[in-house]
Amino acid sequence: MATTRPGDDPAALTELYVEVQRFYARHLQALDRGDVGEWARGFTEDGVFRLPPPHEPLRGRAALAESLGRFMGAAEARGERHRHWHGMLDVRPGPGGTVEARCYALVILSTAEGSRLYRACVCEDVFVREDGDLRVRDRRVTRDDHLG
Amino acid sequence: MATTRPGDDPAALTELYVEVQRFYARHLQALDRGDVGEWARGFTEDGVFRLPPPHEPLRGRAALAESLGRFMGAAEARGERHRHWHGMLDVRPGPGGTVEARCYALVILSTAEGSRLYRACVCEDVFVREDGDLRVRDRRVTRDDHLG
Amino acid sequence: MATTRPGDDPAALTELYVEVQRFYARHLQALDRGDVGEWARGFTEDGVFRLPPPHEPLRGRAALAESLGRFMGAAEARGERHRHWHGMLDVRPGPGGTVEARCYALVILSTAEGSRLYRACVCEDVFVREDGDLRVRDRRVTRDDHLG
Repeated sequence: MATTRPGDDPAALTELYVEVQRFYARHLQALDRGDVGEWARGFTEDGVFRLPPPHEPLRGRAALAESLGRFMGAAEARGERHRHWHGMLDVRPGPGGTVEARCYALVILSTAEGSRLYRACVCEDVFVREDGDLRVRDRRVTRDDHLG
Repeated sequence: MATTRPGDDPAALTELYVEVQRFYARHLQALDRGDVGEWARGFTEDGVFRLPPPHEPLRGRAALAESLGRFMGAAEARGERHRHWHGMLDVRPGPGGTVEARCYALVILSTAEGSRLYRACVCEDVFVREDGDLRVRDRRVTRDDHLG
Repeated sequence: MATTRPGDDPAALTELYVEVQRFYARHLQALDRGDVGEWARGFTEDGVFRLPPPHEPLRGRAALAESLGRFMGAAEARGERHRHWHGMLDVRPGPGGTVEARCYALVILSTAEGSRLYRACVCEDVFVREDGDLRVRDRRVTRDDHLG
């Protein structure tokens, strides 16, 4: 019986896994170079970003780009550069054609004095497809140093 | 002449490489959330885990789960959270249908005070297949700060 | 219309992406174990390595192996071990059959006292194929703590 569900087909699952890896590389390289518009286009128009407390969830590309633009601008003004690293990626086909990803996420912070590990987090994304491209509909990030 | 050896077929080798990446993500996410039973099922029933000295090698799923459960419980009691990161993965088909993987392994340690790099290691695994799934028959981990 | 350009074919692009991941794992594991000859063979015969200032660019396998051999030997004499990590990899087919890769690069430094993050960088490679294998024709590495 023919099927196109990635979960059933090793080749399709392999392609999907690599597609998510490439998505994260481009999406977060865009953020780290300050192109928050390009970064925000990795979400659906009404995509949600559930940040760790005390931050409120952000909803929609405009709010995402505005908030992260302010954050990245403030970091630059302090002489800081951030690099977001996703790794240890798990990808599973989800309900209704969605794609669910769970990975570890580091933030590396550099100043003129050197580079250091700043944050360790877990990132959970629910992706949908729009015109063939993956878009984040819902992102939840938790900080590893928020125990309990 | 037809063959299914992954080493001979780029598509099969690509699938195998991604399969090992996904294995590590699920296997070590299980460990890091304290599900040592699930983590131990990533080994064969009599699988061996050769830890760096002064630790003795562990043999068999029961011993693996018991030992790592004790270790993770003690870390939690100290208010520590561990994240195991594998990266820089090399995968090669080995003798007798085995799969050999060599990668770098970091341990990120978080407490309520923040996150830091705790250990840098090398992990070498020999995998076999059981019911289609990869299982570790032999794991050897060495610490980068054990020089010489 | 038939085509073999990786950019047009998801399966070919997936294979290429994994091929670059494996290349980096083998190439940098060779460097980190001190096998600078093997590492240098990852470049074309006249390959260029544009290091961050104040270093001058290195050109050609012989110069690459000589320079990195000296660097790694000095590190070993100081009781240091380096591990090069590439991650957050983006790969794109480039002009004239080249392959362009952009990734983040960490250097983890270990001594008998422990392991720490030493450098965070960006690595941009232009690959060509020789006898079917990827070789770096041009590498540019920039340090994240060189702001501006």
